[in-house]
Amino acid sequence: MKDFLDTADLSPNLVTELLDSAERFLPLTTVPEATRTRWQGKHLVTLFSEASTRTRTSFELAAKRLGLKVVNIVVGMSSLAKGETLRDTILTLDAMQPDVVVVRHAVAGVPHFMARFSRAHVINAGDGEHEHPTQALLDAFTLRRHFGRLAGLQIAILGDIRHSRVARSNVRLLAMMGAHVRLGGPRTLRAPGIEQFAAGWPGTVCVADTLRAAIADADAVMVLRIQQERLDGAFFPSLGEYFTHFGLTRERLAWAKPEAIVLHPGPINREVEIASDVADGVQSVIQTQVTHGVAVRMALLEWLLSQ
Amino acid sequence: MKDFLDTADLSPNLVTELLDSAERFLPLTTVPEATRTRWQGKHLVTLFSEASTRTRTSFELAAKRLGLKVVNIVVGMSSLAKGETLRDTILTLDAMQPDVVVVRHAVAGVPHFMARFSRAHVINAGDGEHEHPTQALLDAFTLRRHFGRLAGLQIAILGDIRHSRVARSNVRLLAMMGAHVRLGGPRTLRAPGIEQFAAGWPGTVCVADTLRAAIADADAVMVLRIQQERLDGAFFPSLGEYFTHFGLTRERLAWAKPEAIVLHPGPINREVEIASDVADGVQSVIQTQVTHGVAVRMALLEWLLSQ
Amino acid sequence: MKDFLDTADLSPNLVTELLDSAERFLPLTTVPEATRTRWQGKHLVTLFSEASTRTRTSFELAAKRLGLKVVNIVVGMSSLAKGETLRDTILTLDAMQPDVVVVRHAVAGVPHFMARFSRAHVINAGDGEHEHPTQALLDAFTLRRHFGRLAGLQIAILGDIRHSRVARSNVRLLAMMGAHVRLGGPRTLRAPGIEQFAAGWPGTVCVADTLRAAIADADAVMVLRIQQERLDGAFFPSLGEYFTHFGLTRERLAWAKPEAIVLHPGPINREVEIASDVADGVQSVIQTQVTHGVAVRMALLEWLLSQ
Repeated sequence: MKDFLDTADLSPNLVTELLDSAERFLPLTTVPEATRTRWQGKHLVTLFSEASTRTRTSFELAAKRLGLKVVNIVVGMSSLAKGETLRDTILTLDAMQPDVVVVRHAVAGVPHFMARFSRAHVINAGDGEHEHPTQALLDAFTLRRHFGRLAGLQIAILGDIRHSRVARSNVRLLAMMGAHVRLGGPRTLRAPGIEQFAAGWPGTVCVADTLRAAIADADAVMVLRIQQERLDGAFFPSLGEYFTHFGLTRERLAWAKPEAIVLHPGPINREVEIASDVADGVQSVIQTQVTHGVAVRMALLEWLLSQ
Repeated sequence: MKDFLDTADLSPNLVTELLDSAERFLPLTTVPEATRTRWQGKHLVTLFSEASTRTRTSFELAAKRLGLKVVNIVVGMSSLAKGETLRDTILTLDAMQPDVVVVRHAVAGVPHFMARFSRAHVINAGDGEHEHPTQALLDAFTLRRHFGRLAGLQIAILGDIRHSRVARSNVRLLAMMGAHVRLGGPRTLRAPGIEQFAAGWPGTVCVADTLRAAIADADAVMVLRIQQERLDGAFFPSLGEYFTHFGLTRERLAWAKPEAIVLHPGPINREVEIASDVADGVQSVIQTQVTHGVAVRMALLEWLLSQ
Repeated sequence: MKDFLDTADLSPNLVTELLDSAERFLPLTTVPEATRTRWQGKHLVTLFSEASTRTRTSFELAAKRLGLKVVNIVVGMSSLAKGETLRDTILTLDAMQPDVVVVRHAVAGVPHFMARFSRAHVINAGDGEHEHPTQALLDAFTLRRHFGRLAGLQIAILGDIRHSRVARSNVRLLAMMGAHVRLGGPRTLRAPGIEQFAAGWPGTVCVADTLRAAIADADAVMVLRIQQERLDGAFFPSLGEYFTHFGLTRERLAWAKPEAIVLHPGPINREVEIASDVADGVQSVIQTQVTHGVAVRMALLEWLLSQ
């Protein structure tokens, strides 16, 4: 596999291999000299069309910890602004022969399009409302590290499922690894057909009728970010309304197993989709997810470069 | 020569030396460890006032492939915004003692001004409508690699000669190396006096009366980018009009030698100065130019640092 | 000491140790290979909310000269724009486990807040109108290199004392090291209570009644930058008025000792707070300060990483 674009391309064996490999990079500060020098001649380009410092920084630190050289390109500032087509931007970048390109784009499918034209390894760092596969990988890593396994876990995913690339990638990856996902949130923000993502995999996906049914006895509750730009009245009335009906509060978290953990891809909207005391509480692993994101991306980079 | 500012400063011997040296860097992915470690203690700053990801990325990758550390400065974001004079910006940057500064600026002469005040090696990465000497170097490299020589080649350069730094740099360099240049395009976009650039060199430059006269029997056709901001009616009526009268189509390319190649400095405007099927056709070496740009810039950096 | 936030945390011994250490890094171009490889596994993040290329570049070059890897984050482009709280940004960044974070922020206290939540070494690169401790360190380094000592020097600091973090940091550091500071400038821009900064230290601070009293027989005159956004009539009438009454001209500089030197933190406003012939004159050490800034920051980074 030349590229890392989509959870649909993964297999349980590959996911296990990547998660096992990521263990070697914790704690982050202990990468051996030999690993770092091994990749010193390799070059990674980040190509981000959306301002997303969080994910870009995670990839940049992962790459630099392995010794790769990194060049950052913000697409808004590039020749695209001069009217160049996306295909030409991609061909031009490819002609400079970087080894890896990490792409985030507001339009779904751009990383796949890039992968087709590029000799570099292309990593999808989030494409529109489609997929964010490294986020799913780091979430799986966080769950597996905490519970020692993924198979049989009950995972609630709450929020705007319809527009969430994080939800799409997680549903597929978790079902593949034998976990059971229940989706909760406003009816207007459901994603018809998402149950199909589990077809053929040991895990299951279901849409819960109520928030309580989604959370009940869950091992983990994953809260999605509410994109405030969606709050135009089309999907739900207001931020306050959302929190009242769907925000993860301590009371609602108590429906889950007592030892349940809380995940969020960040950045969080406090008192919108999650209460501050839950985000900062002992059950929250939100900061741990960020650390794991670097380790998982290091494992992915090593794996792609070793192909 | 401390700096690389202007094709007028070059000699045929130096051009040959740089082009020979660039051969060692192809394919780009094979820079030997020894080369990379040799330059590890050196620092390059890119100082770009215009958004030009393409050229900046090419220099950044070239420098990093040689092991140099790179710091990027976008002038619009810098102290210039606080009212600092250009001279003070330059003196400040120089006081931090980088080894190389790569400058792009909308005002002609800024790199020369910088070179005067700076102990660093200064490279002109494009100054206003004046010069873009590394572009001319990579074009010459592409032509020489393809034809095995530069002397005696017939090169058509088409488009907005008047405002093009690429045209200026290419005319001088090609004439110096013994190639013959014919300039074609709208009468309103000719550059009076450009023939003087060939004075004293074995090559020649002429302004063709018609597009056909420029292209006829050419070994290579170099198409310049139309700056869409010029399309205000002052120079020619519209994009569509331009393509109709001056765009490089397959029909017009057929006027050249059958084995002629097509160059473009990028980014291209499809169906403005060049037809898509020509840009993507078998005669096009546009992507190859980009690859060569990195190699040529590596050769230039090594040469400056070895002074 | 995990962090470098405030001149109030320093001691004369530590200042002397840092300044001694910085001597090893001059000239900047001679960092031994052993130093550079020692820090190759360390990662520094710059987190700047204000456009300040000068200071960011200085830190970036200092870090790279030591072999650290650098990731730049512009806060305006980050998740803060998506409504993330500052604390969450900090926690997220900390979870990626950089070794050093260099922070500049328009709000006083942000670096201190960050240091509290972060395991990384945090360096204050300027927080609002509060402190800019590495500037004070490089000014002290410049003075000590020139005069061979700090104790007993008479230093005039001129300009907008009230809003200047540079003044605050310098007053404290200079008094700590036994230098005597006289503050001059418009009455409306004095900083009531700043004399307290010298309490307990061998040096003294006084507010001079007139510009002449501040400059008279000084060993060094440090001119502060006038923030043009303050020139709204609230503090003084106009730029021209300011220069007439408070600008450092050759005539006024003649009040100081003949061998006095002139400092400025940059970027300078010519003919506002300083005359061009003074800024460019033989007594000016403004460019030297910039060079020293890199050396001092290298010393600071080494010291923090060696803790």
